[in-house]
Amino acid sequence: MSEKGISLAVIKRLPRYYRYLGELLENDVVRISSKELSERMHVTASQIRQDLNNFGGFGQQGYGYNVEYLHTEIGKILGLDKKYSMIIIGAGNLGQALANYSDFERKGFVLKGIFDVNPVLKGVSIRDTPIMMMDELEEFLKKNSVQIAALTIPKSKAPQTAQRLVKLGIKAIWNFAPTDLHLPEGVVSENVHLSESLMRLSYSLKSKEEDPE
Amino acid sequence: MSEKGISLAVIKRLPRYYRYLGELLENDVVRISSKELSERMHVTASQIRQDLNNFGGFGQQGYGYNVEYLHTEIGKILGLDKKYSMIIIGAGNLGQALANYSDFERKGFVLKGIFDVNPVLKGVSIRDTPIMMMDELEEFLKKNSVQIAALTIPKSKAPQTAQRLVKLGIKAIWNFAPTDLHLPEGVVSENVHLSESLMRLSYSLKSKEEDPE
Repeated sequence: MSEKGISLAVIKRLPRYYRYLGELLENDVVRISSKELSERMHVTASQIRQDLNNFGGFGQQGYGYNVEYLHTEIGKILGLDKKYSMIIIGAGNLGQALANYSDFERKGFVLKGIFDVNPVLKGVSIRDTPIMMMDELEEFLKKNSVQIAALTIPKSKAPQTAQRLVKLGIKAIWNFAPTDLHLPEGVVSENVHLSESLMRLSYSLKSKEEDPE
Repeated sequence: MSEKGISLAVIKRLPRYYRYLGELLENDVVRISSKELSERMHVTASQIRQDLNNFGGFGQQGYGYNVEYLHTEIGKILGLDKKYSMIIIGAGNLGQALANYSDFERKGFVLKGIFDVNPVLKGVSIRDTPIMMMDELEEFLKKNSVQIAALTIPKSKAPQTAQRLVKLGIKAIWNFAPTDLHLPEGVVSENVHLSESLMRLSYSLKSKEEDPE
């Protein structure tokens, strides 16, 4: 069930609001009207009012939204007021790219370790986080409380690795392998399927070519 | 306007169907019922029938769907029967990860070049595709017909780089920078906002913790 009966469609839009409000904060904007926010986000002002009214009392007629308050409240709904520990499984280019995003840490996702099967990578560190070998995983997760695992490994290995992680207590899997994981109740996942994203781009491109406005 | 009046919601689901059908093909499955497909994809059979009936005549009562035919037809709708040329702007970990996915090439996206500003990378090749310097971009795009550019560069540089690419004739931008690009009519884009994906995961995790079934 979603927060206070907020629809899943609204919840899905929250990260985008959070990002825009964060940018406004960085630029020292104290408040913003739904009209201004609408122009920046290329969303109708009425959509914005509808979405944000779900949280009640954030906007005031003729005054606009308090940017910092709204940013904080949306952050809380998204769970960003908490700290989560994360590991990355797979230290290839994609795993290393994730390990290098300092922005995740600022949002409360603390990288605790990176795991791979390639012995060449053993002991190498990325931003002070060591790369360990997969056979050290059990030992590591016994000693460290970790909630999130990012999976950047081949499709063929993803399902059994996910099962192994779940057994070890991982509660959330951020899956980059091009396959859907079927996980037990109580474990959540979010997929980043790059290939599907590229196909959607290809569809848009083809549609434009066939039917240019 | 979408293909033959197919709704955008259905179009968005097509890449996933395409992926599952591709896996069935790899396993030499010739036909499949909506019930079987439904079990694999964890979608209701009626949803599958509704979605695929949009294309007419793919399924037959008591026979099921012809996997290869459906895969091919959905591929055509997605534009995968054509070849597109692609460049990658930004040869960091993420750019290199994209350059290393041979699967994109199999789907018809041919990587023609990678560009970066770091002189250390000049002349380095990834899977036979050379990394060039950003000041070679104009010259390169004059000589080569390229439709798609993947942007794996920092947020601060993404908007002006996108404008530059559009001026040079790029028609589709696959944007990995954590910002929305506002592009002219006729240019399409698809965003991969990793940070937003991680926030959705965090929201699900938090919701489960607060309200475990």
